[in-house]
Amino acid sequence: MAALGLPDINARLKRGAPLVQCITNTVTQAFTANVLLAVGASPAMLDHEADAGQFAGMADGLLVNLGTATSHHFLAADAAIAVMHAGAKPWVLDPVSVGVASYRSTRIRQAVEGHPSAIRGNASEILALAGAGGGGRGVDSTDAVDAVLAGAIRLAARTGAVVAISGERDAVIAVHGDTVRIARIAGGHPLMARVVGTGCSLGALVAAYLAADAHGPFAATVAAHAHFKLAGTAAAATAHGPGSFLPAFLDALAAVDGAALARCEAGIELQQLAVPVSCAG
Amino acid sequence: MAALGLPDINARLKRGAPLVQCITNTVTQAFTANVLLAVGASPAMLDHEADAGQFAGMADGLLVNLGTATSHHFLAADAAIAVMHAGAKPWVLDPVSVGVASYRSTRIRQAVEGHPSAIRGNASEILALAGAGGGGRGVDSTDAVDAVLAGAIRLAARTGAVVAISGERDAVIAVHGDTVRIARIAGGHPLMARVVGTGCSLGALVAAYLAADAHGPFAATVAAHAHFKLAGTAAAATAHGPGSFLPAFLDALAAVDGAALARCEAGIELQQLAVPVSCAG
Amino acid sequence: MAALGLPDINARLKRGAPLVQCITNTVTQAFTANVLLAVGASPAMLDHEADAGQFAGMADGLLVNLGTATSHHFLAADAAIAVMHAGAKPWVLDPVSVGVASYRSTRIRQAVEGHPSAIRGNASEILALAGAGGGGRGVDSTDAVDAVLAGAIRLAARTGAVVAISGERDAVIAVHGDTVRIARIAGGHPLMARVVGTGCSLGALVAAYLAADAHGPFAATVAAHAHFKLAGTAAAATAHGPGSFLPAFLDALAAVDGAALARCEAGIELQQLAVPVSCAG
Repeated sequence: MAALGLPDINARLKRGAPLVQCITNTVTQAFTANVLLAVGASPAMLDHEADAGQFAGMADGLLVNLGTATSHHFLAADAAIAVMHAGAKPWVLDPVSVGVASYRSTRIRQAVEGHPSAIRGNASEILALAGAGGGGRGVDSTDAVDAVLAGAIRLAARTGAVVAISGERDAVIAVHGDTVRIARIAGGHPLMARVVGTGCSLGALVAAYLAADAHGPFAATVAAHAHFKLAGTAAAATAHGPGSFLPAFLDALAAVDGAALARCEAGIELQQLAVPVSCAG
Repeated sequence: MAALGLPDINARLKRGAPLVQCITNTVTQAFTANVLLAVGASPAMLDHEADAGQFAGMADGLLVNLGTATSHHFLAADAAIAVMHAGAKPWVLDPVSVGVASYRSTRIRQAVEGHPSAIRGNASEILALAGAGGGGRGVDSTDAVDAVLAGAIRLAARTGAVVAISGERDAVIAVHGDTVRIARIAGGHPLMARVVGTGCSLGALVAAYLAADAHGPFAATVAAHAHFKLAGTAAAATAHGPGSFLPAFLDALAAVDGAALARCEAGIELQQLAVPVSCAG
Repeated sequence: MAALGLPDINARLKRGAPLVQCITNTVTQAFTANVLLAVGASPAMLDHEADAGQFAGMADGLLVNLGTATSHHFLAADAAIAVMHAGAKPWVLDPVSVGVASYRSTRIRQAVEGHPSAIRGNASEILALAGAGGGGRGVDSTDAVDAVLAGAIRLAARTGAVVAISGERDAVIAVHGDTVRIARIAGGHPLMARVVGTGCSLGALVAAYLAADAHGPFAATVAAHAHFKLAGTAAAATAHGPGSFLPAFLDALAAVDGAALARCEAGIELQQLAVPVSCAG
């Protein structure tokens, strides 16, 4: 398999400073904006239903995360998604809390039909979207990454989206025709799960990398995950607990460079498989 | 009076990792989620009126804080409160900003009728709920804890809730029959009032401790307050100002252990009184 | 030109602890509240349309920033603005994202007609309000301060508001009769633009200084900008990146004193000009 070219993708992100619109939950808006700024992207959190579609016309990428969406924000997401899809611009769905309550689950599944470029969630959420599992307990994940790989391949095959599962070893999955590519990215630190917003802001980082895309959405999504894992490891080395981890993580995100990404890429496990018959279509 | 057993209550919290739903203001959602994660609880900020009640069926505890609630969030709170009460599960009301404007005051007083397990506020807010006082200036408190004890006892007697007043020496009050128990918890640091969210997230911590409850809601509420005071004191010892206090406080919350709580418990002043005639009913 | 008296204005702010109502975007509510607390002001984020006007009757100053406003928050802003204007109390408009989408642009221009005491934005936003330019890309500024001075003078002349432009060298502009006063404040650090909320919270600080006003809105607005620049420089000296800059900035805001402001004032470039004919009316 060809090299992913993570250092090059990162260099394009920094040069391009993509404008990433985030229609995301109010809990993690600030952290998400700071994550995007730390890596050199440009965040915009416009989420009014009357403006979201128009602004999407200017944006280079979009994150949709409906964790605390009001009915107004669901409408904003609908509008922005339609514009991104019509303009062939990348957008990322974070299906946080799918499966835990009915209204949001219906709306999130509807968003899946809007042709996301990538879907990023934890194992429970991916399992719920793939058609099984209860969705865990909100942002918590109660299923391990390995256990949901088959479901994730099915989801990728059905939607055409790159599917990313966050966990101890993240998995990034893309299906083209009858071939599946899987990347497994180790690293990071348990403290990443002890602060709110790491998952949600990773979705935004995926959108930023997709917007700077030159090597295709699979490599871009892997780049975002590698960038995050590197920063998590570095931040944990200086943190005294979850509180000091937060600023250290933003510092580390800003400090990740091509050399670090090249070293990380060398450790990424890549697989290429035939799509299992049960997952096709 | 029997020992409160704070170390044991804390151990149960850590083992149980209760799922705490927070319908709370957008200003402090992130900090509140980080506080819950720091102590080992699991936060979920679901607050859509269509989903909040259904999710409350899964939650172990609930915080309701209507500081920036839209009309949608008031409906979400109504739904979640009804489910918690019907299921005999604990929920905490933070009456922030009661008394400062009419609409919210009406809605917050309505929430008081929903049988909260605990009500936590500053002196002005408790006084406003008890039927006197103007509610201060939002999150500020302009009345001292001592001055509102009588009103707080009245409120506890009328509602059946544990009533907690935050201040230089927090007071936790419970009325059973014609007996009042009062705990006074000293400690903490003035920097706690120089950052936003310490009060609001304390309400969430009370909900987490109530959900892990084994010694009754009075001891659980005291445990949350002791945990907070310990962390505030520890964080202030390393902070250079309000900014560095914030991460230090989360680190300190995560580091509080049974030994620290046992030492803190030894310094807590406990009183048991007959309910004054004027407060009964 | 008379001295601005920044140390004295700061002393009044600390003594007065003004209550500043913030109807502001959900991305920066927490940071804005922490900025106000750090400098000794008292924040209140009440933004329900049913209560916002009533609460404005108690507030000493108001910030309006409609970056993530829902339709409900636009109504809240309308109500609070009317009360501040009727009571001759200061309010600040941060026109963030004006010009980037139609609905918000219409509503923000409507707010400009509500007689703001000060308007604070980046160069793109001020240009868009002055009647030219596209408003940049949200919070980013794509126009330099110098390039929009003429437009800013026109805006100040038309509205009667002090107009402040944030950039490498902030500009504060006031027009009285046919005289323009301009202050240019250097300092700060590029890290201020690598974290979210510095611009938005500066608007709140302007409102706090205006509420403590004794030397007129021009000097008060300059004081807020000088306070920010001093803190930005100090914080950058200890920060390792954007993450550690955040707590350091709050610490530094709290540490700024009269002596530092006096030194800063000595370096502020003040100009007094006749209003250019093209800008009058």
